[in-house]
Amino acid sequence: MSDERPIGVFDSGIGGLTVVKALRDLLPNESISYLGDTARVPYGPKSPETVQRYANELAGMLMQQNAKALVVACNTVSSVALPTLTKNFPVPIIGVIEPGARAAMAATRNHHIGVIGTRATIRSGAYERALRAADANVQVSSQACPLLVPLIEEGLLYDPVTEQMILRYIDPLLAAGIDTLVLGCTHYPLLTGAIARVLKRQIMIVDSAHNCARAVEEMLDQQGLRAAPLNSGKLQVALTDAPDSFLNVAREALQLKFGQIELSPLP
Amino acid sequence: MSDERPIGVFDSGIGGLTVVKALRDLLPNESISYLGDTARVPYGPKSPETVQRYANELAGMLMQQNAKALVVACNTVSSVALPTLTKNFPVPIIGVIEPGARAAMAATRNHHIGVIGTRATIRSGAYERALRAADANVQVSSQACPLLVPLIEEGLLYDPVTEQMILRYIDPLLAAGIDTLVLGCTHYPLLTGAIARVLKRQIMIVDSAHNCARAVEEMLDQQGLRAAPLNSGKLQVALTDAPDSFLNVAREALQLKFGQIELSPLP
Repeated sequence: MSDERPIGVFDSGIGGLTVVKALRDLLPNESISYLGDTARVPYGPKSPETVQRYANELAGMLMQQNAKALVVACNTVSSVALPTLTKNFPVPIIGVIEPGARAAMAATRNHHIGVIGTRATIRSGAYERALRAADANVQVSSQACPLLVPLIEEGLLYDPVTEQMILRYIDPLLAAGIDTLVLGCTHYPLLTGAIARVLKRQIMIVDSAHNCARAVEEMLDQQGLRAAPLNSGKLQVALTDAPDSFLNVAREALQLKFGQIELSPLP
Repeated sequence: MSDERPIGVFDSGIGGLTVVKALRDLLPNESISYLGDTARVPYGPKSPETVQRYANELAGMLMQQNAKALVVACNTVSSVALPTLTKNFPVPIIGVIEPGARAAMAATRNHHIGVIGTRATIRSGAYERALRAADANVQVSSQACPLLVPLIEEGLLYDPVTEQMILRYIDPLLAAGIDTLVLGCTHYPLLTGAIARVLKRQIMIVDSAHNCARAVEEMLDQQGLRAAPLNSGKLQVALTDAPDSFLNVAREALQLKFGQIELSPLP
């Protein structure tokens, strides 16, 4: 038995394409329908109720495309909307936070984990909660890095200014003694190279996009939802409003191939 | 005759407080009601129709507070919504673009003017149009500076990273031969010090907040709307959603005194 229906992936904008890239690399036979809510990005400053409402709308749009599973490629949505999504939609739903937290727990030796993310994600404490749920004694040091998303969206992925900002943000975490760093924002995998250069010590970098893709693979196997091994997975990208230049930055940096962007106006 | 009704000032967020500061300095007898649409910031990526609708809503809220004039302390709104606002509201309405363009024309000697602003403002071509309307032969070199607003909002007003970015953005304008630089974003007056340090040559800096305040003064005089010379002007600040840390950055950098922020939910 195989299941060629697409995996539906959504995000508040373009950043979730890092999760798509990880899924394409790991699961080339799976088709993916991506939906980015560029009309209403960013979600970070919005109230949990509003984010939940938007998430339900996006998930509904993907279900109309017959999605066999939903991937929430957005930290803000993952931190507040998984329960309502699970209640409303009869397919498996995977977020980015729990897989990232699980991988960090597996990686750390000294049980001191650093988390970086947007101000909204760090303020939500979602990673801290997920990490403590796995091990009540884990030590977590968090740092909001509000300038990294704008730097990434401007395409300054390999730039001295970006490296200076990374160093400034991460220095206090290194001083605190972390041995593992969770990239708690779907934009940040685009900076993995720069972050690795700045981290001269032996720090494990946990990329939540990559770990989310692993969790999807596991779920597909468990539920018997894999596409046929010879199926050539297609990638379709839809946005709720015209993209800005960050789409080109992401497409080029991720070497993602997709055709025409579809515009999916909100209902 | 004097008129103690407040001047209504609005912006998509907090940046317009630089215009408030310029108004307070120039017109200490005037009361000011400021309204920042923090619930829906930023306006830059939104369609002109949406920006016009939001501007009419904000102007209507200020008119309910009996505003005697409206100041549009936002480049995006100034570039697309002045005609509809003028049609809908029976008070004088002043934006930031035309006063800035007029001051730049008065300042330039070689008739080559540089304009910096957000991507949306530069793309709109509003300053270029206003400058060319004054002198068809003026040469205009424009540069979008998308990282300056995030750097300002993070409070990095006197920071080597900010200076590097300013230099990178302004260098092509200097190379092109401008002798006058218009700060075409209401956030940028917070960077006047850093920009002046980077501009080692003799470049005139035209701060549109300051010139907007001068235009307001002129209009009040012409229309007989000045408050009494002994009136002590009050400043009231209202926002459509809870502010983030940028409010403190702006308040401190501008040395603006105001009491409790009022929350004015949108209708």
